[in-house]
Amino acid sequence: MPAQSVNGDRLLRGVTELAQIGRSESGGVTRPGFSPADLDAHHYMVREAENSGLPTAVDAARNPWLGPRPHPGTTTLVLGSHLDTVVDAGTLNGTYGVVSALEAVDNLASLGFLAHPVVTVAFANEEGARHPRPFWGSLAASGQLLTPAAATTAYDGALLRGALARAGGNLDAIEQAGLDLHQLLAYLELHIEQGPVLERERMPIGIVDLIVGRVQLEVELTGAAAHAGTTPMPGRSDACAAAAAEIVLAVEDLVADWCQVATVCRIEAAPNSPNTITGLVRLTVDVRDTDEGQLHQAADEAVRRIESIAQRRTVKASCTRAASSKPALTDAALRRSIAAAAARRAVPTLPLTSGAGHDAQVMADITPAAMIFVPSIGGVSHTPHEDNSPDDVVLGAQMLQDTALALTSHPGSLA
Amino acid sequence: MPAQSVNGDRLLRGVTELAQIGRSESGGVTRPGFSPADLDAHHYMVREAENSGLPTAVDAARNPWLGPRPHPGTTTLVLGSHLDTVVDAGTLNGTYGVVSALEAVDNLASLGFLAHPVVTVAFANEEGARHPRPFWGSLAASGQLLTPAAATTAYDGALLRGALARAGGNLDAIEQAGLDLHQLLAYLELHIEQGPVLERERMPIGIVDLIVGRVQLEVELTGAAAHAGTTPMPGRSDACAAAAAEIVLAVEDLVADWCQVATVCRIEAAPNSPNTITGLVRLTVDVRDTDEGQLHQAADEAVRRIESIAQRRTVKASCTRAASSKPALTDAALRRSIAAAAARRAVPTLPLTSGAGHDAQVMADITPAAMIFVPSIGGVSHTPHEDNSPDDVVLGAQMLQDTALALTSHPGSLA
Repeated sequence: MPAQSVNGDRLLRGVTELAQIGRSESGGVTRPGFSPADLDAHHYMVREAENSGLPTAVDAARNPWLGPRPHPGTTTLVLGSHLDTVVDAGTLNGTYGVVSALEAVDNLASLGFLAHPVVTVAFANEEGARHPRPFWGSLAASGQLLTPAAATTAYDGALLRGALARAGGNLDAIEQAGLDLHQLLAYLELHIEQGPVLERERMPIGIVDLIVGRVQLEVELTGAAAHAGTTPMPGRSDACAAAAAEIVLAVEDLVADWCQVATVCRIEAAPNSPNTITGLVRLTVDVRDTDEGQLHQAADEAVRRIESIAQRRTVKASCTRAASSKPALTDAALRRSIAAAAARRAVPTLPLTSGAGHDAQVMADITPAAMIFVPSIGGVSHTPHEDNSPDDVVLGAQMLQDTALALTSHPGSLA
Repeated sequence: MPAQSVNGDRLLRGVTELAQIGRSESGGVTRPGFSPADLDAHHYMVREAENSGLPTAVDAARNPWLGPRPHPGTTTLVLGSHLDTVVDAGTLNGTYGVVSALEAVDNLASLGFLAHPVVTVAFANEEGARHPRPFWGSLAASGQLLTPAAATTAYDGALLRGALARAGGNLDAIEQAGLDLHQLLAYLELHIEQGPVLERERMPIGIVDLIVGRVQLEVELTGAAAHAGTTPMPGRSDACAAAAAEIVLAVEDLVADWCQVATVCRIEAAPNSPNTITGLVRLTVDVRDTDEGQLHQAADEAVRRIESIAQRRTVKASCTRAASSKPALTDAALRRSIAAAAARRAVPTLPLTSGAGHDAQVMADITPAAMIFVPSIGGVSHTPHEDNSPDDVVLGAQMLQDTALALTSHPGSLA
């Protein structure tokens, strides 16, 4: 018996309703992990699953599981993404993957018997927009949460412990969020491309082969605030803003020899008064590459450049590796399953490298993982201008469901 | 009859008590103009004057006058400075000049008859730390408040109108704050040097000859926020943070050919999310020179450089002259009066140029104006590390009082 096709109206309604949760003035969405808006989105999805008669559970990392959580005696297919966003994000991003996953789980559940259970997960704090531990939920689920969790603070200094507890998680029981790899069949994630390739190539579906790794450096530059009028230029050992400016350009220049992309994404200055030389700057350096060795060499080079600039400017620099993710190769058999599902509907596909990080690269450490991409209009993401054609959005969800059906309908499907 | 000497204990107690108003965690003081802390400091000084039996008044610009306000039939000597501060300022700065002025006015009042009345003023919002119209109080008092006042907003968007009204001023009656120049004898301001010269030269008293002018540019750079991982480097027409970084360095480089000092003092970025390319940057450029023509040429060059960088980076730039002050030459006869007062006590003095702006340069437009400087330890100011030796602080106040006594004790003293 074929599963019911994806209900496009229901899918798009879900995306639209979630776009109202954490809506910002600019028309974007702001739902940092563990914020009240993030929690509202989480509750929305749990209610949707319960309305469909699915079991739900929340683990200690505050990951909601919609459908049967992996359990002994089964190998479960996990479909997932995340509901949290960056500041002023677009409306699709991780939300699309979660809504599509629940659509597939619901439709497949109506078939009755499946050889492998299938479940949706919405991994918590994938973006790390407020609490700088991105991939929080998938790291906890895959037993890789190595950062001393109690020390993970927000950019404004708030500890993650309290935010997690208020959102329904429990830092002291975080190990209980870890999955048993013997209970997992695979992890599959549907996402918007967030880049320009599929649109440019006029291809509706991308099958991700590689996912970039990322190192995030938190840099603090300490100079001495001083009067901007009376402090002679040659005496400005404390030209902190100027040191930060040189660092921004030196990071950008890393791509000439060291890595694929490098960006300073956040910059905060103090005292930020209109006639005082800046005394303190905090900035975030984001370095990405698909080669793990190259990635860490690039991060080391970033630190060397920062320290050299700081020394010349007589500013004190401290660099901390706030987060890093490994580049990942997706599972070849899973990629073939996606390609076969697309071929059955005569949908053309393109192999793609992901320049963004995803929970899939974290899950790849414990189970076969793969990703399906749909085209992003103009290639933009992490902005309110993020958009995708509704047809592409519905087709991507259908590909996810078709692949999930092929994988779960009989044992030994993944080989 | 000689006036009572400056009461050093009372003077230092005043400075210390005011240092508690708006105290920040770092030990500095944060009293932006028209903030609640600024208002508390204002009320403290009014109470001090009333406790000494002096008349007090507040004008429409929210300048407190402690002593007899200039009035018809007299020519009054005005002693003043300001009580507002930058963010995380030192404890002396303008506060010192106001406390010393009241000490002198109180001691001179006890003499009974003076040929010229003497009064203390604490000019409102000299720094412009929240509402970017520095020298607000002295501009109003000298009839030079040309900025459409209703449009003057704070860095967080709040209008000055409401803040002024809550602080006891009245924007609609602002012309009433204007002084009649025929009722003024002179304006005299005591201040810490905020620079390194007096300390280096081991001189206790500086007599200011020139005060720098300043142009403050508010710059807004608009790019397009985008995903920091998926957006290819060559396609980053929106590398707003990188454009800002180039601008910071181009502004710093202005001193090679264009002006005496140039600084980017404030920088704010949005969305400031750790994996999104910056879409918007606001920054403040501070350019200073003692030559008015040179100053404006430097500001024009800053705008040219900003526009050229923005064009190359395909970022939209808008530059606004938020505030500017003219360089000023102090009055030669007043300078001689200060020097004579110092000579009577065998105190050595040094002529000095002020790299900081002061209300004295604004008042110089309507009345003879001069300034007395005392040494700053390490030359630092606009930071909690600002400090001065108590002996220098008391000596400076004595010089202010001695000069004021000489100027007010008989008619025609200023010639």
